[in-house]
Amino acid sequence: MSKKNAFYAQSGGVTAVINASACGVIETARKHKSVIGKVYAGRNGIIGALREELIDTSKESRSAIHGLLTTPSGAFGSCRHKMKSIEENRAEYERLIEVFKAHNIGYFFYNGGGDSADTCLKVSQLSESMGYPIQAIHVPKTIDNDLPFTDNSPGFGSVAKYVAISTREAALDVASMCETSTKVFILEVMGRHAGWIAAAGGLAAQEDGDAPHIILFPEIAFNREKFIARVKRTVKKQGYCVIVASEGTQHKDGTFLAESGLKDAFGHSQLGGLAPTLAQMVKDELGHKYHWAVADYLQRSARHIASQTDVDQAFALGEAAVEMAVQGKNSVMPCIVRGKGKRYSWSIGEAPLDQVANVEKMMPRNFITRDGFNITDAAREYLQPLIQGEAYPPYKNGMPQYVKLKNQLVPKKLKKSFKV
Amino acid sequence: MSKKNAFYAQSGGVTAVINASACGVIETARKHKSVIGKVYAGRNGIIGALREELIDTSKESRSAIHGLLTTPSGAFGSCRHKMKSIEENRAEYERLIEVFKAHNIGYFFYNGGGDSADTCLKVSQLSESMGYPIQAIHVPKTIDNDLPFTDNSPGFGSVAKYVAISTREAALDVASMCETSTKVFILEVMGRHAGWIAAAGGLAAQEDGDAPHIILFPEIAFNREKFIARVKRTVKKQGYCVIVASEGTQHKDGTFLAESGLKDAFGHSQLGGLAPTLAQMVKDELGHKYHWAVADYLQRSARHIASQTDVDQAFALGEAAVEMAVQGKNSVMPCIVRGKGKRYSWSIGEAPLDQVANVEKMMPRNFITRDGFNITDAAREYLQPLIQGEAYPPYKNGMPQYVKLKNQLVPKKLKKSFKV
Repeated sequence: MSKKNAFYAQSGGVTAVINASACGVIETARKHKSVIGKVYAGRNGIIGALREELIDTSKESRSAIHGLLTTPSGAFGSCRHKMKSIEENRAEYERLIEVFKAHNIGYFFYNGGGDSADTCLKVSQLSESMGYPIQAIHVPKTIDNDLPFTDNSPGFGSVAKYVAISTREAALDVASMCETSTKVFILEVMGRHAGWIAAAGGLAAQEDGDAPHIILFPEIAFNREKFIARVKRTVKKQGYCVIVASEGTQHKDGTFLAESGLKDAFGHSQLGGLAPTLAQMVKDELGHKYHWAVADYLQRSARHIASQTDVDQAFALGEAAVEMAVQGKNSVMPCIVRGKGKRYSWSIGEAPLDQVANVEKMMPRNFITRDGFNITDAAREYLQPLIQGEAYPPYKNGMPQYVKLKNQLVPKKLKKSFKV
Repeated sequence: MSKKNAFYAQSGGVTAVINASACGVIETARKHKSVIGKVYAGRNGIIGALREELIDTSKESRSAIHGLLTTPSGAFGSCRHKMKSIEENRAEYERLIEVFKAHNIGYFFYNGGGDSADTCLKVSQLSESMGYPIQAIHVPKTIDNDLPFTDNSPGFGSVAKYVAISTREAALDVASMCETSTKVFILEVMGRHAGWIAAAGGLAAQEDGDAPHIILFPEIAFNREKFIARVKRTVKKQGYCVIVASEGTQHKDGTFLAESGLKDAFGHSQLGGLAPTLAQMVKDELGHKYHWAVADYLQRSARHIASQTDVDQAFALGEAAVEMAVQGKNSVMPCIVRGKGKRYSWSIGEAPLDQVANVEKMMPRNFITRDGFNITDAAREYLQPLIQGEAYPPYKNGMPQYVKLKNQLVPKKLKKSFKV
């Protein structure tokens, strides 16, 4: 095996632990110096490759790279840029090959979700389709937990932990004030098409009657009458009502309760404003005093309360991706396999990329209670292990110490620039 | 000194550390059994006294009471109920005395903010005004940090830490995605009249150019043109712009940018929706993709990342209140006194209650930069020590273990009920 350099890029929405995967990739590549030369990271993801903006990670110290393990968000920058098919945009693929060739890149590690898996798949086929030998391995990542094959996706466990804790904490607040103040509290969480994150809010409950009393999932068509009736009943019984609502909560016809009208590069609608919409509904129908929170980016960047399990898995997947590359594999995705025993255990498996790309894993219906408003014991059993352990970052002066890399670019070798 | 029972109540918006003050009060009272009998806690604050709903804290185990140190929100329930003057509502005071007399209560510990200090002051004067001997001590608490005399208010340090960390984390997220995605991020935080909490967001910055790039304070009249110009300039220079906005951000004429129309029991407007208002403004004027978060109750209940300094001070103030009572004091509030040295230190002082009640401490103008959009080094120097240390709660199964008290009521002795 001749020595080739590696390209690594972060793609799509970042997470609290995507840098832990980067750490896994880079540290493991450094252990295989006989076959892997340098690891170049794309500045702002795949567009870094297209623009020939390659970050030389060999310029980063051992401790800086290790600091990625405790640093949220994408240290090299990420992007929302979906590559079209080769037929539709051959120029982009030709450019990629040009850049890879110029920098002797033979390994492609792509750290992203479902859309990115599709890009990674296309790159993995460049050898066949365009005669450029490359091994492409996808490193799974998405807070949405909607990737197939893998038992769970890195990034999700930490959001889940954040949402579960925030729900429990806010619920204590509401419970203590409800006699004379706020009676209904709504926490809006992410999850466009799948209710995994909203479901995690359900972990806040320990006993019957505990918050959250209502969870709204994208999987269950929103029914205003049933929702209001449930809020009313809960306030009457518990004195207050805590609702965790997925931003993707939708009407029967598939329209979102709160569309802002914007669309991102992948053509997805930008959502927002569900919580105030629901709050207004509660006020109009029941007159209760309400409060609402929208966690937005706070939830996916909350490295300060990341799940240890999530961090461990994110690192292990980055590590496994490099090991697979060294073993000569192509067009695969390392994934998390849950052990069969009663006690939670996990190991690394392998999924074929062509079966991962563009497939969304929805929540099983048996994870949602029959009435559609909460999670079942089956969901609880699945979710609980994913939030285990507190992977606290180091602190200085009361603030978490997140690393800032030098992100030094490799001198360009190509004359032509490329417009992305 | 004859042995009397004590009454303790939590008042107004709860915090991540108000229970730490409760812990200080109860544990210290238990050490003075020769002069203080039982500590009765008001169920849902002062209305618990009016309704004769007294929680017998002696029924709680030592470990449960100690668990209050790591449990957010009000364990006995709180309320928003401002007692009018004796002239305006003599019946309420007569009822209080009736209940106090029936349960041999000679100490009144009131744990709240400015409005509550006013109630506590009135109670402290019952001896003079209505002939009932009682010692009333106010235990300061408010996330708004707007109490006079005390260097800072318990509850604030933890919100400050949460907001500073959340701002830093979300900013990393935005920075890594801004090339192709969100360019403007707005975090709406609490603070109706004083910008202390928004100011704490400024601690997220370490170097020039770091987020937050704009802080909006209630103290500075909002100017749409200047705001938009600053956002535009920041996005041009940094590639993105992070804004921390106080819910109390207001126009020159004193109207809030986002009023929901509701008012609470104290007559304060219920705010909400500032972040989407600002986001819309940015979109209309500059067309940038935006995201916004509203932390709402999440920020004041975030015990999972409470400041150790804040927890220590909250406990110490509860402890000091009891010591002052034992020393025969009345109508005072223990407060935090900052040491003069360069290294942060603090001790407990004492403030006369009649000078605390209904006085709001605004941010000094020299804490805000001349342009009105950020904090100065003076502010930083003041704020930094308050977020020191991470007072992590214990965890079980990946979730913080917050105590749930028995909250067993003392049998009623009065025949008449009282409508609050």
